[in-house]
Amino acid sequence: MNNKWLVRTDLAYDEVLSKNNDIEGIETTNFIVDDLNVIKHNILDNTNINKPVGTYYTIDLKDVDFHDSRICENIERCLSKVINELLIEKNLKNKKCLLVGLGNINVTPDSLGPYVMDNVIVTKHLFSMNNISEGFSNVAAMSPGVMGTTGMETFEVIKSIVENIDFDFLIVVDALSTNSIERVNKTIQITDTGISPGSGVGNKRKELSENTIGKPVIAVGVPTIVDAVTISSCVIDYVLKYLNYVSDNSKPSDKLVVSPKIDLNAPTNSAINEELFGEFGKLTEEEKRNLIEEILTPSGYNLMVTPKEIDADVEDLSKIIAGGLNIALHDGILKTITE
Amino acid sequence: MNNKWLVRTDLAYDEVLSKNNDIEGIETTNFIVDDLNVIKHNILDNTNINKPVGTYYTIDLKDVDFHDSRICENIERCLSKVINELLIEKNLKNKKCLLVGLGNINVTPDSLGPYVMDNVIVTKHLFSMNNISEGFSNVAAMSPGVMGTTGMETFEVIKSIVENIDFDFLIVVDALSTNSIERVNKTIQITDTGISPGSGVGNKRKELSENTIGKPVIAVGVPTIVDAVTISSCVIDYVLKYLNYVSDNSKPSDKLVVSPKIDLNAPTNSAINEELFGEFGKLTEEEKRNLIEEILTPSGYNLMVTPKEIDADVEDLSKIIAGGLNIALHDGILKTITE
Amino acid sequence: MNNKWLVRTDLAYDEVLSKNNDIEGIETTNFIVDDLNVIKHNILDNTNINKPVGTYYTIDLKDVDFHDSRICENIERCLSKVINELLIEKNLKNKKCLLVGLGNINVTPDSLGPYVMDNVIVTKHLFSMNNISEGFSNVAAMSPGVMGTTGMETFEVIKSIVENIDFDFLIVVDALSTNSIERVNKTIQITDTGISPGSGVGNKRKELSENTIGKPVIAVGVPTIVDAVTISSCVIDYVLKYLNYVSDNSKPSDKLVVSPKIDLNAPTNSAINEELFGEFGKLTEEEKRNLIEEILTPSGYNLMVTPKEIDADVEDLSKIIAGGLNIALHDGILKTITE
Amino acid sequence: MNNKWLVRTDLAYDEVLSKNNDIEGIETTNFIVDDLNVIKHNILDNTNINKPVGTYYTIDLKDVDFHDSRICENIERCLSKVINELLIEKNLKNKKCLLVGLGNINVTPDSLGPYVMDNVIVTKHLFSMNNISEGFSNVAAMSPGVMGTTGMETFEVIKSIVENIDFDFLIVVDALSTNSIERVNKTIQITDTGISPGSGVGNKRKELSENTIGKPVIAVGVPTIVDAVTISSCVIDYVLKYLNYVSDNSKPSDKLVVSPKIDLNAPTNSAINEELFGEFGKLTEEEKRNLIEEILTPSGYNLMVTPKEIDADVEDLSKIIAGGLNIALHDGILKTITE
Repeated sequence: MNNKWLVRTDLAYDEVLSKNNDIEGIETTNFIVDDLNVIKHNILDNTNINKPVGTYYTIDLKDVDFHDSRICENIERCLSKVINELLIEKNLKNKKCLLVGLGNINVTPDSLGPYVMDNVIVTKHLFSMNNISEGFSNVAAMSPGVMGTTGMETFEVIKSIVENIDFDFLIVVDALSTNSIERVNKTIQITDTGISPGSGVGNKRKELSENTIGKPVIAVGVPTIVDAVTISSCVIDYVLKYLNYVSDNSKPSDKLVVSPKIDLNAPTNSAINEELFGEFGKLTEEEKRNLIEEILTPSGYNLMVTPKEIDADVEDLSKIIAGGLNIALHDGILKTITE
Repeated sequence: MNNKWLVRTDLAYDEVLSKNNDIEGIETTNFIVDDLNVIKHNILDNTNINKPVGTYYTIDLKDVDFHDSRICENIERCLSKVINELLIEKNLKNKKCLLVGLGNINVTPDSLGPYVMDNVIVTKHLFSMNNISEGFSNVAAMSPGVMGTTGMETFEVIKSIVENIDFDFLIVVDALSTNSIERVNKTIQITDTGISPGSGVGNKRKELSENTIGKPVIAVGVPTIVDAVTISSCVIDYVLKYLNYVSDNSKPSDKLVVSPKIDLNAPTNSAINEELFGEFGKLTEEEKRNLIEEILTPSGYNLMVTPKEIDADVEDLSKIIAGGLNIALHDGILKTITE
Repeated sequence: MNNKWLVRTDLAYDEVLSKNNDIEGIETTNFIVDDLNVIKHNILDNTNINKPVGTYYTIDLKDVDFHDSRICENIERCLSKVINELLIEKNLKNKKCLLVGLGNINVTPDSLGPYVMDNVIVTKHLFSMNNISEGFSNVAAMSPGVMGTTGMETFEVIKSIVENIDFDFLIVVDALSTNSIERVNKTIQITDTGISPGSGVGNKRKELSENTIGKPVIAVGVPTIVDAVTISSCVIDYVLKYLNYVSDNSKPSDKLVVSPKIDLNAPTNSAINEELFGEFGKLTEEEKRNLIEEILTPSGYNLMVTPKEIDADVEDLSKIIAGGLNIALHDGILKTITE
Repeated sequence: MNNKWLVRTDLAYDEVLSKNNDIEGIETTNFIVDDLNVIKHNILDNTNINKPVGTYYTIDLKDVDFHDSRICENIERCLSKVINELLIEKNLKNKKCLLVGLGNINVTPDSLGPYVMDNVIVTKHLFSMNNISEGFSNVAAMSPGVMGTTGMETFEVIKSIVENIDFDFLIVVDALSTNSIERVNKTIQITDTGISPGSGVGNKRKELSENTIGKPVIAVGVPTIVDAVTISSCVIDYVLKYLNYVSDNSKPSDKLVVSPKIDLNAPTNSAINEELFGEFGKLTEEEKRNLIEEILTPSGYNLMVTPKEIDADVEDLSKIIAGGLNIALHDGILKTITE
């Protein structure tokens, strides 16, 4: 039963948080890079968490306006540094790279990958013509489409190309899912563990990773969708925390606080929970979510949704991610920009 | 306090249902038109409901696959009959019509109106050149954009045009909001009471109606967004009804029912509700919603969302609505189709 | 010198016409299929023409309004019959097919292939799940992009996939070039000789054919672009034919003919040509074209252009071609339509 | 007869050049602004030219790569200075402005106006809420569509709005036509004489100017289409000039010059012209064009075309024009950029 809800998120960060940050076998480090919070999780052993062993970086955009062009540049630089770190660590700098944009360009919340591919700099054809300036590395890009519109497993398409054309590693970009409404369109995850295409839209497909492809696979993703179970669980959780907060802070002066800042990670009082929410209130967050899911899913009411601003969010995030990839892969670009 | 949540839906149907269908001053009739359920509400007096006096038709697409081309034709015919009914009743057949597509074409869940305008048949310019075949009436169309991108009140733009160019009535098309997850992209509302542009995306603007424009205004809309409060309230409600159902049907044979069909309109047992959900369980649906909203909205967590299939839904619904308008306005079309 | 202008067209029909239809080694047959003119060229020996040996069908849409939905259905049926003929002849009925949409979806005159792919029915994934109804054959589809945006030779991408995934034959769709302004967006060519991707936009790439891929390759294309040399040559040719016609028909009554129907294939009088156009007038059509090209190309003035209606043309032609492919590949579809 | 071909271009520059730059009643000045050639024509009296009296600026982009982001910034600054000059001259600085994007967003070569509107900064609604920072002036924007899709005269739509909502002047943006293949997508014209919507796509509509609207109308346009007559005339002209050049430069050493730079404004030798092109060669450029047009137009062969790169050209030019308008209208922007 535990496994069931865990597949709902593609973010290591979600899962670590759901365990109250305290999991054996995981090292967590926090950084500030270009004014942005970056969390790094090293999963050394995944017996306690449903994510492959490897490194996960999370760039947190929660209070960041990524529609502002100056802030965009910050995020691009931050992302390029994170990717660069992984490239250096895995000895992939200036090696031959295949960029892959997963997802369906005609489904806005699933179109991040293909739109990133529209904005990256490709050079492989110039290398084969010996027509390339210094400062650029060998990069190709593709958007293989999704099984529903190609009839082929995306994994098979990519594997065919990797086996026949000469690449040293892959960077795949995809829309993801999350189990937190706070993180939808507000998080970039970068990992060296690869990806399972389509997980962001609810159809888990064959994984793309070094194990299956035979070359290192770095994955970059943004969660763009949540389901009704996630939203309800988050809301109930928030309501409970709010009511706990209010009953804890019942001095007259508190009445003046119109919209208190609730600490979403604060523990709650089980007596209050039970009084307010009965048997349901006694469940853990995970149990609540499981209960709601068990009831909602078979009825077809577990709607998958995306914020109404999805068009602008995907447009700007795809430019940011492409920008970050371009800077990380081609040293010459930053030089041109800062000249 | 009552008013607050009522503004969250643009559907008369939502509000009637929230009162258990039993409101003084409202006549409700059910029809089957071209295999589709159509509900007609005549609001004769709006002291008990937060909707203007007038006629509201609701075409229910809940179990209807509107991506199937044959079913599309059914819905078009059904919609054209409903519009025709209103045109005849208000003596507007073959009068000069201005079609208005409200909303922002670059925001998918708000783009229904402009996309409908892309598919309607306009003839006004042909009439002014005396170059029009029999069976067509005088129709113009426009998509005025939204205030955020034009800097002008949409109401002022439309009023300017109606005052200067010769029209007898308006039909406006817009994306709406709903307070039921079941009805998102699954309902077409047609009314003779006009519309408040932008209400579907949360910014109520000056109303477009016969009162303000001076000409009859028929409005056609589909709810495309819901907020987190709506989703959570619906889910909690569903969970409670499920748990009530299960405790009512505790014979051994019931155990075999994997996914029982829950009657969402069934009453619930208050003792069970309280046991399961404590103080919260004792609230009415409306009170629960109000409580959640009070807590969620100030914190910025009341996300507005849309189903992840919004691109395909808006594409097909806009063709259906344009088709229905074309048949209703131009008698010659159906003749051509059925020849 | 001869070779040079011949590469400007992808249409066998253009080349046959340029030789006055009278070429040894070519059998030409004319058909009427669903009210449309279809010309079949069997090139048995290509010593006299710059096109590979094989079969070429040309569906002529010169006086056909393919924006009219009824005529669209005619063209779809006609195209499906032509494709079916090739499939039967080459024993490919119900074999495993890979559809390939060549070209760049972001360059409207080059986007025909990808848009066709957006409208075809794919089934390969359903076959592998044994979840497919009778009347459908095994079809996959892909749009590999263009070298400028992927960095990879399109040929290499397709070859990789064909070698790794199980297919019996390919049908590739692409935008072509022509050397006649009459045929731009007005001709569908279907051939069993394959294609050279990108030739339609002036960059000849490695050919996709049975010789290079190892599986039969049927190509379907529409010419969407012409160059300034083509336009000028056609216009000068037309002007000369008009002036010949006028000097031949100099009775007073001819003065009343405002816009005579000029026979573009009529021979011209060399004395008239010389008087009117001097030395230039004495050149053959091919020589005139070569001269213009020699002068124009190095200067950068040989603009490649497309009709201003290209958006609507590509939209409707891509639906027609997808419709024709669907009917030809899946016998079950026509049954459903005609039921 | 003279008038006929003159309507084919919306550019004053084309017409001045066609008269060999030497027209009474026109003052011509050349500038270099931000490294770009800018030509200013003051038409003081239009008896000798088919353009309204007023000021015309032409920014020449012939050898300018406007897809390069640094050059884009140059062009934006140059355009903003030209517009600013007109605003100051006509005392319109910081007055209330309505921006109008003419054309059809679904027809790429006609979509410049609407795409510019997607990228301009509008503030009118913020002024009415007193919610605007210093450095911004009062600007609204609209894209009224085209008569074929609205059924209304564009002029009537705009006039209605100008009469009802409070504006001091208009800036309209539109795609234009030209009679020179060199200037397609390579020229920005800015004028204080207004515009005739739709002229760029061949359907002259009621003019938008101070005379008809009652407020100053500045027009900004780029020619995006040419017709087959233009292309052929330009090509024949170029061929003649080339052949003249070659016969003038017949020393042996000239044989080595592969692609000489031909001066397109050089006079030609009428004896050479006649020998090479017979009677046709004796015609003036204008007469040649008229002859070709007389023959081509009635037959339906006078195709209107656009360069195959139109998608990228319109995308980048619309951003540049929006950028130039934003800087010219809002003093605060440049300050932010250069800070």
